[in-house]
Amino acid sequence: MKPYCEMSAEELKTLKSELEKQYEDAKGKGLKLDMSRGKPSPAQLDLSAGFLDALSSSDCLKSENGTDTRNYGVMDGISEAKKLMADIMGVKPDSVIVCGNASLNIMFDTVARSFTHGVNGGTPWCKLDKVKFLCPVPGYDRHFRVTEYFGIEMITIPMTPQGPDMDMVESFVNQDPAVKGIWCVPKYSNPQGYSYSDETVRRFANLAPAAEDFRIYWDNAYAIHHLYEEKERQDELLDILSECEKAGNPDMVYEFASTSKVTYAGGGISAVATSPANLDWIKKSMTVQTIGFDKVNQLRHVRFFKDFEGVKKHMMKHAASMRPKFRAVIEVLEKELGGLGIGSWTDPNGGYFISFDAMPGCAKAIVAKCKEAGVVLTGAGATFPYGKDPEDKNIRIAPSFPSPEEMAQATDLFVLCVKLVSVEKLLGEV
Amino acid sequence: MKPYCEMSAEELKTLKSELEKQYEDAKGKGLKLDMSRGKPSPAQLDLSAGFLDALSSSDCLKSENGTDTRNYGVMDGISEAKKLMADIMGVKPDSVIVCGNASLNIMFDTVARSFTHGVNGGTPWCKLDKVKFLCPVPGYDRHFRVTEYFGIEMITIPMTPQGPDMDMVESFVNQDPAVKGIWCVPKYSNPQGYSYSDETVRRFANLAPAAEDFRIYWDNAYAIHHLYEEKERQDELLDILSECEKAGNPDMVYEFASTSKVTYAGGGISAVATSPANLDWIKKSMTVQTIGFDKVNQLRHVRFFKDFEGVKKHMMKHAASMRPKFRAVIEVLEKELGGLGIGSWTDPNGGYFISFDAMPGCAKAIVAKCKEAGVVLTGAGATFPYGKDPEDKNIRIAPSFPSPEEMAQATDLFVLCVKLVSVEKLLGEV
Repeated sequence: MKPYCEMSAEELKTLKSELEKQYEDAKGKGLKLDMSRGKPSPAQLDLSAGFLDALSSSDCLKSENGTDTRNYGVMDGISEAKKLMADIMGVKPDSVIVCGNASLNIMFDTVARSFTHGVNGGTPWCKLDKVKFLCPVPGYDRHFRVTEYFGIEMITIPMTPQGPDMDMVESFVNQDPAVKGIWCVPKYSNPQGYSYSDETVRRFANLAPAAEDFRIYWDNAYAIHHLYEEKERQDELLDILSECEKAGNPDMVYEFASTSKVTYAGGGISAVATSPANLDWIKKSMTVQTIGFDKVNQLRHVRFFKDFEGVKKHMMKHAASMRPKFRAVIEVLEKELGGLGIGSWTDPNGGYFISFDAMPGCAKAIVAKCKEAGVVLTGAGATFPYGKDPEDKNIRIAPSFPSPEEMAQATDLFVLCVKLVSVEKLLGEV
Repeated sequence: MKPYCEMSAEELKTLKSELEKQYEDAKGKGLKLDMSRGKPSPAQLDLSAGFLDALSSSDCLKSENGTDTRNYGVMDGISEAKKLMADIMGVKPDSVIVCGNASLNIMFDTVARSFTHGVNGGTPWCKLDKVKFLCPVPGYDRHFRVTEYFGIEMITIPMTPQGPDMDMVESFVNQDPAVKGIWCVPKYSNPQGYSYSDETVRRFANLAPAAEDFRIYWDNAYAIHHLYEEKERQDELLDILSECEKAGNPDMVYEFASTSKVTYAGGGISAVATSPANLDWIKKSMTVQTIGFDKVNQLRHVRFFKDFEGVKKHMMKHAASMRPKFRAVIEVLEKELGGLGIGSWTDPNGGYFISFDAMPGCAKAIVAKCKEAGVVLTGAGATFPYGKDPEDKNIRIAPSFPSPEEMAQATDLFVLCVKLVSVEKLLGEV
């Protein structure tokens, strides 16, 4: 089939009535599929079944240095859990605090602390007239909600396959003292699955911020979440902490990670890694906030995986479970939309999402049409601050939860809706 | 022996040299005991061993209404965990949000949220010139540190065996709009082990605060932590939530609890209970902060205890473990200090602490002397805001961690130090 934009109005109208018929048929199928969030599937969670058996009443519940994990204390985490989380992030164990079940919570607390008490003794942001964050887009909606909650102005930065547009980042960060942070998902980014190039990481590390309390919020959520076994389809990311240190900016970054998408989304452990000065500041408030996080669950993770090799092996099982779903989506997209000029999409090497760009002005209508026929997608606009995609074109596809068969079915419907809305758009009807 | 205050200088000097000799002997014993914090003992933690076996890979990991506890979602907790925590607090499950492993964290977040975003839409406290909290004393040091961290002025209210001095509470709360909260440990209070009388609870519920955003921070940490099996030695506490509702003040209280001192201090679950309007406000920010807490651990708790009857039975095992330690302390105190007029102490029916009042001006010196001989007590002053006991007399004794024998030994040393410091005080030497 030829590109839609080359079709005459007549051709488009004919096509439209065909597509409408197909859509009515599709609605009749009573689909009920959810690809709105990056939730692991039950089958993927089953891969961690042994996790629950890793600690039983007959096991020693002391950490390697003798801490009784059942009791109070050791606010920053048992040493073997620090090691495990450090290995996942590719940093030194000394740089790490292991926390509760969600890295989102640490990120929230990090922004909240800066808002109420400043960064390492600086002016609390609540005392400032204006605080701004840079937000590479499309990006992760929950990041944007944290900054929105604290009334922080969000400035969008376009993403490229190598990472955020660094010319823009440098210009904002180095010139505007109100810019206090940037949200990054540097590896297998949400939603595009892009990984920052070495040059991007180095340019980040060499920023010369106008604000002393500027920090990079480096959410390394998908550090080990490859989809493919072949090394050439596994992205590598430079360690931002050591790059910042080399560049003379040791305090400029907070790195976050968790096992929410490694063991259990509802029962993992999380961590933050940063410089000694930043760690001191965090601990100073953390000691007011908690006596310590769940060390039993930290120990359970270490016992289950043994070491980082164990984690990597485990993640290859995840890849085997996730890959067919991603392939199912990509294959349908290529087969049905290839060459039509009405959409483009990413084919990432890892992570949890595929990013789809429709023709401008079509995303909301496509998502609505899918929903009407029983397939729930992430709300259009969610990948932008304030939920507002200025071009109304980006759609996040989350293949993790449904089965490969369901993903194929859902994508069949999706491409149908993309076609139908695109035709309507070209006919000037939407 | 007669009261020290009736002794002549001569008699005191003779006594002093005897006590000094005893103290030197005691130092030679090389004691190394910690009764500084309310930590459960290893033996007590062992009582929860089956807790780790309550969930294994062969168990169904869905909650009663079908939620997969391993996955994301259900921010406010699975329904059976709500029921369990509600039963512990004596409230309705609908009033409850089940959170992470520590109620301290919820309390911190509750104050932090009020600081940054106000209470239920009111003015954020960070925009106010002055925010004050009432702090019944002696009280819990970690409460005071939370309010201190946010720059909140703390006003001390004397405790009585029936609870805080309610004339003072009413006068401050009903007249000063800067008073936004009061910290309460209403049952088996920390450190005195007092439980608020029905009249006290009702007077709380019937406060007429000058500030609309005044709230009672009701830390029901020891709701089920009796030390005795006999009903007449088990304190009962009125349900503040329903009393507030009856009094037309449904939104005036946040109640907190956890299983930190029920299962594992480092691996329990916590909860907050409050009115629908307050819950809505909390959830509004919580949804920015987290996708959900550790539901697997929530399920583990429910499976281990089955129901509230199971919890109560379990807590009677705790009582059997704790009681001999409390008795050991009380017996030594009575035998060694009874009638000397140099100290008074509480003999609580539950909780984790015994409160000791020395002669004014002696607490710091006693704690220092104990430490010198190998027994670590909670720092003198810790039971007061800013760590400052104006009379320097209160000492918190935490019998939970050592064994009964160790507690007896430690208390022997303690009473010796009390005697010695008191003599020095009466001689005008300290």
